[in-house]
Amino acid sequence: VRVELINTGSELMLGFTVNSHLNYIARHLAGIGLRLDRQVTVADDRAEMRAAMAEALARSDVLIITGGLGPTSDDFTRDVVAELLGRKLVRDETVAADIAERLRKRRIHLPESVYVQALVPVGAQVLPNRNGTAPGLAIEHEGKLILLLPGPPRELKPMFEEYVLPVLAKNFGAQARFDCRVFKVVGLAESIVEERVAPALAGLKDLELGYSAKMGEVEVLIIAPLKSTADEAEKRIRVALAENVYGTGDDRLEEVVVRMLTAARQTVAIAESCTGGLIANRITNVSGASEVFVNGCVTYSNESKTRLLGVREETIAQYGAVSEEVAREMAEGVRARAGTHFGISTTGIAGPTGGTPEKPVGLVYIGLATPARTEIRRHMLLFDRETFKFFASQIAFDLVRRELFAKR
Amino acid sequence: VRVELINTGSELMLGFTVNSHLNYIARHLAGIGLRLDRQVTVADDRAEMRAAMAEALARSDVLIITGGLGPTSDDFTRDVVAELLGRKLVRDETVAADIAERLRKRRIHLPESVYVQALVPVGAQVLPNRNGTAPGLAIEHEGKLILLLPGPPRELKPMFEEYVLPVLAKNFGAQARFDCRVFKVVGLAESIVEERVAPALAGLKDLELGYSAKMGEVEVLIIAPLKSTADEAEKRIRVALAENVYGTGDDRLEEVVVRMLTAARQTVAIAESCTGGLIANRITNVSGASEVFVNGCVTYSNESKTRLLGVREETIAQYGAVSEEVAREMAEGVRARAGTHFGISTTGIAGPTGGTPEKPVGLVYIGLATPARTEIRRHMLLFDRETFKFFASQIAFDLVRRELFAKR
Repeated sequence: VRVELINTGSELMLGFTVNSHLNYIARHLAGIGLRLDRQVTVADDRAEMRAAMAEALARSDVLIITGGLGPTSDDFTRDVVAELLGRKLVRDETVAADIAERLRKRRIHLPESVYVQALVPVGAQVLPNRNGTAPGLAIEHEGKLILLLPGPPRELKPMFEEYVLPVLAKNFGAQARFDCRVFKVVGLAESIVEERVAPALAGLKDLELGYSAKMGEVEVLIIAPLKSTADEAEKRIRVALAENVYGTGDDRLEEVVVRMLTAARQTVAIAESCTGGLIANRITNVSGASEVFVNGCVTYSNESKTRLLGVREETIAQYGAVSEEVAREMAEGVRARAGTHFGISTTGIAGPTGGTPEKPVGLVYIGLATPARTEIRRHMLLFDRETFKFFASQIAFDLVRRELFAKR
Repeated sequence: VRVELINTGSELMLGFTVNSHLNYIARHLAGIGLRLDRQVTVADDRAEMRAAMAEALARSDVLIITGGLGPTSDDFTRDVVAELLGRKLVRDETVAADIAERLRKRRIHLPESVYVQALVPVGAQVLPNRNGTAPGLAIEHEGKLILLLPGPPRELKPMFEEYVLPVLAKNFGAQARFDCRVFKVVGLAESIVEERVAPALAGLKDLELGYSAKMGEVEVLIIAPLKSTADEAEKRIRVALAENVYGTGDDRLEEVVVRMLTAARQTVAIAESCTGGLIANRITNVSGASEVFVNGCVTYSNESKTRLLGVREETIAQYGAVSEEVAREMAEGVRARAGTHFGISTTGIAGPTGGTPEKPVGLVYIGLATPARTEIRRHMLLFDRETFKFFASQIAFDLVRRELFAKR
């Protein structure tokens, strides 16, 4: 099975938007054993789109095209594909009714041009769009499958998982060329991960292995043509990395922590200075977080650390706001006031300004208060501001995860 | 000038690494008035690479190829290009000496295979690599320019800015095709933006126009071959969209709000329920936020709304936590306790669970308390959880922005 992907959008070709579709789609195809053979990006330019689509169609069995399905004058994927396949566009009344219903519910009035999105090439199957007005389209044409998907990721992703993947798995699953698994590792540097994993996998034949350092975590990827090889590799990786593996595939650390807290019926409150609300934000991205998360306090000013968390003014005066002592009082204070099992705290210097010789940019204290004790970690995180915040939040989540892991 | 880009790497085609090169290179090319016409990604596969390169070369004047220049067994860009152009690979002794010196300095011993990186197609110009052993290569061939660049971003970026951009600007700058500007719009739907902008720009010749719906905002992109056209278009867009344009280019709404608060010497405190810390997180992503942001409270539980913000228990009992009244007491409470000029609040149902017939998933109240009054907005945001949070945070930031805008 040869699979190609075409991403359309002038914003991609002018560098205004990062193309996240290649990564997302490739990863999900790999999950069902399909490998992407070529990916092409073109601007919203009819001639360029037509040329790229005609070439890709000639070469491939499955062609996925993203973007250009919206209602504005630079959206012409629908037109170009219909023309290329020699199919007329006809108005699909079910799609038109869906669009009308969506606008009615949200009480917005849009120009009539919005209904251009109800035009469908003859014989195409409509893929419902849960998060927008532009439906996706699946077209079987001369033994090939052409899939048109909307550009916005929040519209593309549910559609891809609900409609596209099942169809591909059903039609091409038997010809799937490999088993691909990703392990997510936290608390170890990439080179340490490789040092442990590589010897553990020695002797396993037909196994591809990759390492990728992401923000605050490392991914280990294995690809094997046989499921039995992948199973054996997974077993050995899990032994070699032990509790440092926090999940697989698309797992996110905050999800794992919420799942573990829920299972243990434990609650958490969060006191953030340098992470500025990122930890609370990540935990509340997880559906069901309200079962385990009581409240967060983002205490940027010293006064708010005292007012909201009960950090003593003398502690701040004596040790400074960025100190082990303040991190301790923050974690213990937020835990005591919220009445939770755990209290998390962060205080540090995210930069780029605000550092001193004794307390340089990158210094951070991360605290975890439990019913039994309070643990403080000191780290130097030499990154830009947002990366600094993310690394610090990873360390905080991992403290909770390891605490719950140890108590299992 | 037709410019194409080929990114090579199996990790890109398996969805293991995000391709950041397209965005980086496209943006820098646009900065010197060059547009990327097509971008292709292929795995480390000789046949696929050769086919993609031959096709691109036939079409373009400038071909940029990234990745596959390293010393390992899956690096064969150098070989494939040399073969395609019919040029021999010869060892460049200066490059070999650079590699030896780099290894000596870092006191590392690598297998002899590392010197494969000193092989250069006859007639190619070497582009020094400040951060690695693989040099870049520039090859003039039958009137076309082929640029080979290393895959790791920290190696590619300095090389691109120091060697590639100056060469392109020198050779093609005079033929640069456009002036490109992006306007960031908040508070209007994409189709409304188009309805206002399109007629305003009527009659302007040689102007390309694009619209892109992002999360909670719309981007309007103009491309014009003449600066005077771009200037006139910008003037008309600013009139047509007025205060709905919050910025240009890379501006982010939270940055603009922090800049405006700083200029007005005003402060803000934030009380978040359904946005779960996202507003605080976004504001603290901006360097200098500590000048204007005092504290945030992420009050997920009802009890914490009362304890941290002073929301009355009776208000919650009578109207429910998701209500205009609670949003009001949250905004006013956080403002009064923090002693700031502004208080922001959010309370809503992010979903996917927790909705009722009267208060469905997607309902949100967003409040802004000022010294003069409190304003509450009610919205239905029918999106997945994270998008819901982002839209709500956009509305909150925009309330502050419009307040400051009106008072200018």
